[in-house]
Amino acid sequence: MTSAIVGEPLPQVSAQEKTLGRAIYSGDVKVAGMLHAKLLRSPYSHAVIRSIDTSAAEALPGVKAVVTGADVPERAWGVAHKQQHVLARGLVRFAGEEVAAVVAVSEAVAQEALDLIVVEYEEAGALLDPEGALDGGAPKVHAEGNLADEINISRGDVEAGFAGADIVHEATYRTHSQYPGYMEPMATVAATDGTGKLTVWTSTQSVFLARQRLAEALDRPVSTIRVIQATVGGGFGAKIVEERSSVIAAFLATVVDRPVRVGLSRLDDIQSGCFSVPTRIHLKMGMMRDGRIVAKDVQVLADCGAYAGLAPEVMLVTAMRSDNMQRIENVRTKAQLVYTHTMPRGAFRGFGGTQMSFALNSHMAVMADMLGMDAIELHRKNAIRTGDVSVHGWNIGSCGLPECLDQVQAAIGWDEKRARPKGTGVLRRGVGMAAVMHVSGNRTMGNWDGSTVVLKVNEDGRAVILTAESDMGQGANTMLSQICAQELGIPLSHVTVQAPDTDSAPYCLGSIASRVTVNAGHAMLKAARQAQGQILEAAAEKLGCDADELSIVDGVVQSNKNGNLFAPLPEICRYHIFRRGGEGILVRATHDPQTVMMDKDHYGNIAPAYSFAAQAVEVEVDTETGQVRVVDTYLSDDCGKAINPLAVHGQSNGAAVQSIGWTLYEHLQFEDGRVMNGNLADYTMPTAESVPTIQSGIVESNDPNGPLGAKGASETAILPGAPAIANAVFDAIGVRITDLPITPEKILAGLAAKEESQHA
Amino acid sequence: MTSAIVGEPLPQVSAQEKTLGRAIYSGDVKVAGMLHAKLLRSPYSHAVIRSIDTSAAEALPGVKAVVTGADVPERAWGVAHKQQHVLARGLVRFAGEEVAAVVAVSEAVAQEALDLIVVEYEEAGALLDPEGALDGGAPKVHAEGNLADEINISRGDVEAGFAGADIVHEATYRTHSQYPGYMEPMATVAATDGTGKLTVWTSTQSVFLARQRLAEALDRPVSTIRVIQATVGGGFGAKIVEERSSVIAAFLATVVDRPVRVGLSRLDDIQSGCFSVPTRIHLKMGMMRDGRIVAKDVQVLADCGAYAGLAPEVMLVTAMRSDNMQRIENVRTKAQLVYTHTMPRGAFRGFGGTQMSFALNSHMAVMADMLGMDAIELHRKNAIRTGDVSVHGWNIGSCGLPECLDQVQAAIGWDEKRARPKGTGVLRRGVGMAAVMHVSGNRTMGNWDGSTVVLKVNEDGRAVILTAESDMGQGANTMLSQICAQELGIPLSHVTVQAPDTDSAPYCLGSIASRVTVNAGHAMLKAARQAQGQILEAAAEKLGCDADELSIVDGVVQSNKNGNLFAPLPEICRYHIFRRGGEGILVRATHDPQTVMMDKDHYGNIAPAYSFAAQAVEVEVDTETGQVRVVDTYLSDDCGKAINPLAVHGQSNGAAVQSIGWTLYEHLQFEDGRVMNGNLADYTMPTAESVPTIQSGIVESNDPNGPLGAKGASETAILPGAPAIANAVFDAIGVRITDLPITPEKILAGLAAKEESQHA
Repeated sequence: MTSAIVGEPLPQVSAQEKTLGRAIYSGDVKVAGMLHAKLLRSPYSHAVIRSIDTSAAEALPGVKAVVTGADVPERAWGVAHKQQHVLARGLVRFAGEEVAAVVAVSEAVAQEALDLIVVEYEEAGALLDPEGALDGGAPKVHAEGNLADEINISRGDVEAGFAGADIVHEATYRTHSQYPGYMEPMATVAATDGTGKLTVWTSTQSVFLARQRLAEALDRPVSTIRVIQATVGGGFGAKIVEERSSVIAAFLATVVDRPVRVGLSRLDDIQSGCFSVPTRIHLKMGMMRDGRIVAKDVQVLADCGAYAGLAPEVMLVTAMRSDNMQRIENVRTKAQLVYTHTMPRGAFRGFGGTQMSFALNSHMAVMADMLGMDAIELHRKNAIRTGDVSVHGWNIGSCGLPECLDQVQAAIGWDEKRARPKGTGVLRRGVGMAAVMHVSGNRTMGNWDGSTVVLKVNEDGRAVILTAESDMGQGANTMLSQICAQELGIPLSHVTVQAPDTDSAPYCLGSIASRVTVNAGHAMLKAARQAQGQILEAAAEKLGCDADELSIVDGVVQSNKNGNLFAPLPEICRYHIFRRGGEGILVRATHDPQTVMMDKDHYGNIAPAYSFAAQAVEVEVDTETGQVRVVDTYLSDDCGKAINPLAVHGQSNGAAVQSIGWTLYEHLQFEDGRVMNGNLADYTMPTAESVPTIQSGIVESNDPNGPLGAKGASETAILPGAPAIANAVFDAIGVRITDLPITPEKILAGLAAKEESQHA
Repeated sequence: MTSAIVGEPLPQVSAQEKTLGRAIYSGDVKVAGMLHAKLLRSPYSHAVIRSIDTSAAEALPGVKAVVTGADVPERAWGVAHKQQHVLARGLVRFAGEEVAAVVAVSEAVAQEALDLIVVEYEEAGALLDPEGALDGGAPKVHAEGNLADEINISRGDVEAGFAGADIVHEATYRTHSQYPGYMEPMATVAATDGTGKLTVWTSTQSVFLARQRLAEALDRPVSTIRVIQATVGGGFGAKIVEERSSVIAAFLATVVDRPVRVGLSRLDDIQSGCFSVPTRIHLKMGMMRDGRIVAKDVQVLADCGAYAGLAPEVMLVTAMRSDNMQRIENVRTKAQLVYTHTMPRGAFRGFGGTQMSFALNSHMAVMADMLGMDAIELHRKNAIRTGDVSVHGWNIGSCGLPECLDQVQAAIGWDEKRARPKGTGVLRRGVGMAAVMHVSGNRTMGNWDGSTVVLKVNEDGRAVILTAESDMGQGANTMLSQICAQELGIPLSHVTVQAPDTDSAPYCLGSIASRVTVNAGHAMLKAARQAQGQILEAAAEKLGCDADELSIVDGVVQSNKNGNLFAPLPEICRYHIFRRGGEGILVRATHDPQTVMMDKDHYGNIAPAYSFAAQAVEVEVDTETGQVRVVDTYLSDDCGKAINPLAVHGQSNGAAVQSIGWTLYEHLQFEDGRVMNGNLADYTMPTAESVPTIQSGIVESNDPNGPLGAKGASETAILPGAPAIANAVFDAIGVRITDLPITPEKILAGLAAKEESQHA
């Protein structure tokens, strides 16, 4: 073992190639003879396609193929609901849906040909507002109706809880859809070869789930498809299994039997969907005077847009995840997911957690005020603790939430700032906070949440890791390399991680549900120890001693008993091959955590570990312009053990910025269901200017089920930002915003209403 | 198990992509931003490089770099003798040696720039004839002298053997150098990436040995290099470890930090060397009247050209391999390998066996005549048999040589044709034969001859094989696929073999020494059975029965006891993942045969199995022109068990043609050490017109150490052709040619000399 690798604040192993501009993203992949495709999108939210005339487009010099829904496989694909085709067949269900594709010698020619395709649409009434989706007269998005999913959960006796409560508060919250905003819009290159095999380089969080989706959509066996992950410039949930342009690219390659590249423009990428699920949450909670939550009733209405995708799973998280953060017994949830004639929404960092976090933490703040209790104190009182089993059956192996609360309380100067007199000037400051939890892994994709890692140790004593868990920028490869290097006793620079490739990597689920550190990290730990064992056995044979007295330190196998007994690792690795019965070192290790599938009632310990976080922010509200500015923020993440503190801080800080964007700046604008601000000038993500110095802290609760104590650390951090800001705004100006985003208009309207009520 | 895959005459699994013209050979690899390189070769066999002026070449627009020996690593590389550099440093040792390289935007520009490089040579005396190499006054090729290697082996009492022999015959034989003549001249594309890693696509018989060679020549760790095998259009030994252009390509990529392609022209490829080792063999044998060989004395002088490469190993084979084919006790060999100022020679199909086969089988024919015995009978009498231990310690687990002799005797109509009166017309016919043996594997590359195969079975029940054993056209991938498909019980089309890639495949030695079927085939068998075991265990769990009652037939897992108990393989493969403690099926199996390294005295059972072959040919000699035409040939190969009879026949037939070429048509011409016929118009390989319908037979001796009984089947078949033809020529016209090739000039000279001696 070489110390000081795990736990050290190290730059990402991909840093060099990225900063040199030499990392190859999917859009950079160039295959000889590659053609380019452009996609024609529906301008209508709901319309019947009467006819498509592709003749003029086909006649354009340089055009190789024009493909429409008539050409694509009949089989429909989807996560659980099989309802999409490679291209729309006969009917479009959202403005932006792909109705035709042109393959040409260049993007310019393909783009020109798009304009020559004549589509005759018959517009139909569109359902754009989820509120009316379940009304009898609403336009139907799918023949079977507009209800995509419904969840009902009830634990304990909610009515008795409310009856016995000292205070009850109910309110409705609305959250809007957020664009994942990754640096890299979707891009895919797909190519067939002489064996009929289809190779697809794409930007994905999971090559194996991508392969599964392509196989389904293209109606061919998975083994006839090879998916290779190019460098991924961010995923944030949108690149799990709902993404459509990669499906189209792959299909086009099979049509023209030539390599085809589909690189989405930012507008394309935004029109394609994969935004987060907008929700309306009605929350009713009852508490005792001491702050104890005794009853909770939740009603969720969520909008998945035209196709369900992962939205049912997302809504389930909204519906019940945050219940597990608190010691509550009586809880009831009814959640309905409806279709609308808008872009599909689905997985997004936090996976439904941000929506309920906003409601719950806003609600907690209000009820703390009702009780005259400090909000942090109220959270602390209700917080679940290490060793608890939550209301939904989750075994909390470690919980650093109290420590997170302590950290943010101190860091933001909570007590002093809450105690200061309310401002009366134009610029008024306030502080707010929120507390959250997330899963590290989730036994939801079939009864398995495992990960397999293959580790090769070369003749020069350096290691290659083969995995299909994805580094999409979050640092999975750095985490795996650190564990591998430390356990094997070699320098970090002697470890490389192969890009995920379905033909050479073991089956993995990929980067979803913050599962990679806890599950792949564990598999890596096992594999490294297994390889180390093999190396030490071989070394013992070669050096003529016992394996137990040997260890590997900085690439040298040495005896703990006899300082003269040692051998450089390359020598042992060569000896491992070149001896009777030898072989190259290649080990495989799998870790499937001892979790259980949720039962039909959504009960069960689904994750090996659960992470917690708290965030406190200070805002400054300009009461004249209505602008809210975050002037300070501190987020504390209980990640179990920070394998790489620099990476954890990076995740925390990025998440904090993303939550500020969602809360204050980003706002998708529709007109008749059409996106009106499909670019980064009008869809205003936060820039460096619009955020303060972001601060974050780490709590190491050392989870017994995490590898070296670690839990996931990338999604939890996005959850508390919005309610912390909303609570801080309330603290600053006494206006409670329950409908995201917090726009200047809403602030000014709130201030006006407050003034009115004060004068009334 | 699905029957009728192993043992069936099946087309190669690569047939489709090759016949469609879509297989990607190294020269077809295109990497974005790729540059092209051309190599400047020495026109002199031996010269000091006084200076190289690259300025004009560098000034040519489009030239990116001009590299000379001054720029390359100081470290020398080589198989055992470390004596080569990436480019010649200060001294050239053969005409054709690479002295500079130009990297440019196109091959045309690079070629033009070559002409602008001014090299000032100081010519030195060149040693071109190996015969004088060890004379004191001979020009020295290397400072340490001209003896590259010497082998002395002595068993039994040779002098006593000769003393007791009834007849003794001695003669000197000469064999010439043969060009491997693969369809695909060497090509390599090498590229660096943003992590500093070097990826090399090349035409190689062993990606791991290629990586080792590149690491040594470029003086960097193996793990910083990734070698990927593109489709290989033939290797025949020349693409094992001696090849130099791939080393240059890789180095150039590191210099310009851009992808570089080096594609050799046919002239380039021929000038580079990798021809077979020319030898002079003096053979003296003593026999008893009954034909028993009682003494054998061998003296070999072999020429490795300027660098030793694998030639010492090749000469060792020449020196002693064929001894093991016969029950002899007294044998003595002295073999010397010398350097000359000519192109390096080395590994070639048969690996030194053809040279001695020519001498031995010619000698046997002469001595059969001396004894008045039939040559086949003489071979039969001396043939080693199953269960024997040979004079050099080889355990003959199976020997089908007697059956091979029977087959060729019958097929060629030996008895009738030998009995016919000698011709007297212009066109005279004769028959001749030869018998040979070869290894299947060889424990020579360190104390290991193992092979590791990784087998993945996908969710759809189809399989992917990861190996670094190479298919260079000989059919390794088909063999592995057949064994995998049969053992797993799935269709052959459901198996794919990944192209060898050092970063994802397990460590393997590659396609050398006819080792792949016997060693990788065994590993494949083990891996398939291991995967099958896992599948049946999972199926038993799912179906609720015992694993032993289950088998996989045509992709369905079914109970042998209960016909209603079955499940499609994909269902089980998915279940294998998606269950508690599940994982994707990925197994690794290694087979290292129970062989031993030769001791210092060259004694030891080096191979798990030994293959045998015999060939009979009928020739027609035109006594006016001296032309020899092979009119019939039948080669019988004891391959243990024909995994794929079509492939075995393909190997036999190809080998027969290649041996006809070596014996009658191909002849490398030098002038002052410069190749004078470096193209396929002047270096005349046999065309379809110049060979008869090639026939072959298979003997299945079912070796106990072979997978399913199989032994190697690609090299043995090239061994008997030359002496069979020489013997047939003697049978036709009474002229004994001991100096290959058998040219019309030699025939006419022989006829003239014979006539003269008859008249004398």
